[in-house]
Amino acid sequence: MKPLILITNDDGIEAKGIHHLADCVADMGDIYVVAPRHPHSGQSSAFTVNAPLHITEHEAYNSARMFSVTGTPVDCVKLSMHHILPRRPDLLLSGVNHGSNAGNSIIYSGTMGAAFEGCMQGIPSVGYSLLHHSLKADFTECTPHIVHITRRVLAQGLPEGVCLNVNFPAKVKIEGMKVVRAAKSHWTEEYQEYLDPHGKPFFWLTGRIVNEEIGNPDTDLYWLDHNFATIVPARADQNATDAIPVIQKSLL
Amino acid sequence: MKPLILITNDDGIEAKGIHHLADCVADMGDIYVVAPRHPHSGQSSAFTVNAPLHITEHEAYNSARMFSVTGTPVDCVKLSMHHILPRRPDLLLSGVNHGSNAGNSIIYSGTMGAAFEGCMQGIPSVGYSLLHHSLKADFTECTPHIVHITRRVLAQGLPEGVCLNVNFPAKVKIEGMKVVRAAKSHWTEEYQEYLDPHGKPFFWLTGRIVNEEIGNPDTDLYWLDHNFATIVPARADQNATDAIPVIQKSLL
Repeated sequence: MKPLILITNDDGIEAKGIHHLADCVADMGDIYVVAPRHPHSGQSSAFTVNAPLHITEHEAYNSARMFSVTGTPVDCVKLSMHHILPRRPDLLLSGVNHGSNAGNSIIYSGTMGAAFEGCMQGIPSVGYSLLHHSLKADFTECTPHIVHITRRVLAQGLPEGVCLNVNFPAKVKIEGMKVVRAAKSHWTEEYQEYLDPHGKPFFWLTGRIVNEEIGNPDTDLYWLDHNFATIVPARADQNATDAIPVIQKSLL
Repeated sequence: MKPLILITNDDGIEAKGIHHLADCVADMGDIYVVAPRHPHSGQSSAFTVNAPLHITEHEAYNSARMFSVTGTPVDCVKLSMHHILPRRPDLLLSGVNHGSNAGNSIIYSGTMGAAFEGCMQGIPSVGYSLLHHSLKADFTECTPHIVHITRRVLAQGLPEGVCLNVNFPAKVKIEGMKVVRAAKSHWTEEYQEYLDPHGKPFFWLTGRIVNEEIGNPDTDLYWLDHNFATIVPARADQNATDAIPVIQKSLL
């Protein structure tokens, strides 16, 4: 039996990136694409609690069956497992995201929210992102790397509790791949301020990521700057178990 | 100068739990409550990318200034830092959530999404949750524990990169507090299936958490079952740095 590969994203079923990903892995198994009906950037591990979800099957793309869900990336994974897939998937791929999920962007990323959901369900899971926000971004350079990583993960699996956050530099020849950790970084909290026609203010998030470890070759932001693809092993588990003794001492 | 305390939640500005939390800490500093205008359960670290945000100031509650934001818990924290607070807060409190954030619920939790956001910005941050979903839940038993933990964290801070996920058992005398890790657990992916008036199916998430470590006294689910409050130290950082060598070997 061919492997079953679930593909999702946070840019929605119509995004160029998810079609590119489906193309890259078309010959590796039975492909199901289950993606949000509308773009859901910045959705992290959000899921829908207080509203119903609708599933629509779309025309097949290449060899892939295509479904959209009126929810978040995590909703797509959960509903795929419950209702859409014919069996448990052997692999979950998320992306290719239009935009970076490097540095601390991982915690806000719907692309990686879906990968963490797969990971928590014991499915080898990989998120792919390109450092280019354009709807028309060119994913060609990513192809050999996506094929390589996907084949290896499909063959060998991943360590328990670990998924991968893969980012590609944009608009360049990719020099190679590095397995590193996410750089310590933060977003400047900038909001553009407007006045509505009635004189009432409203706000729109802008800002940019600030690398707190410039020049550190252990980090993803360093190697992306040097035109390498980066592979960051990540955990859904957020326990700070090593901090238990100090918290016990200070709080109890 | 009095400490500045930012309080937020994911149940929205009208929730009973956030008013209870404001009461508990009213005499500890200058209190700003900045909460979502509407309930945002299950929002994780989601933030609003593609829509404007509106801020409304409401009537003061007790000594607290009250603001609502038309976004997620993370939006509330970011916009507070940027626009609402008179200075950088000394402490961020989130909750008291109406419902558990124990076990792996932490990754989906908007309550903890706000706490992680504060933590990433270097603010000592604590999420409080009660294991009772009712809008009318009784938070009285939590009071002395909230006061104790908040006073200690305000006085001593928290280790860098660590925030706290505090859960209270419901409807019982609380036997004490334990500092532990979140139990390995998962949600059953159950959806109730309906037919709309036109015969088209839709789905609504249900299901329950499954403890994979029943009987393990190192975990929060164990002690909550035994009527203890649990304090879980947690990290926003999701790097699986220890897995880098094995991934290097298997992928490169």
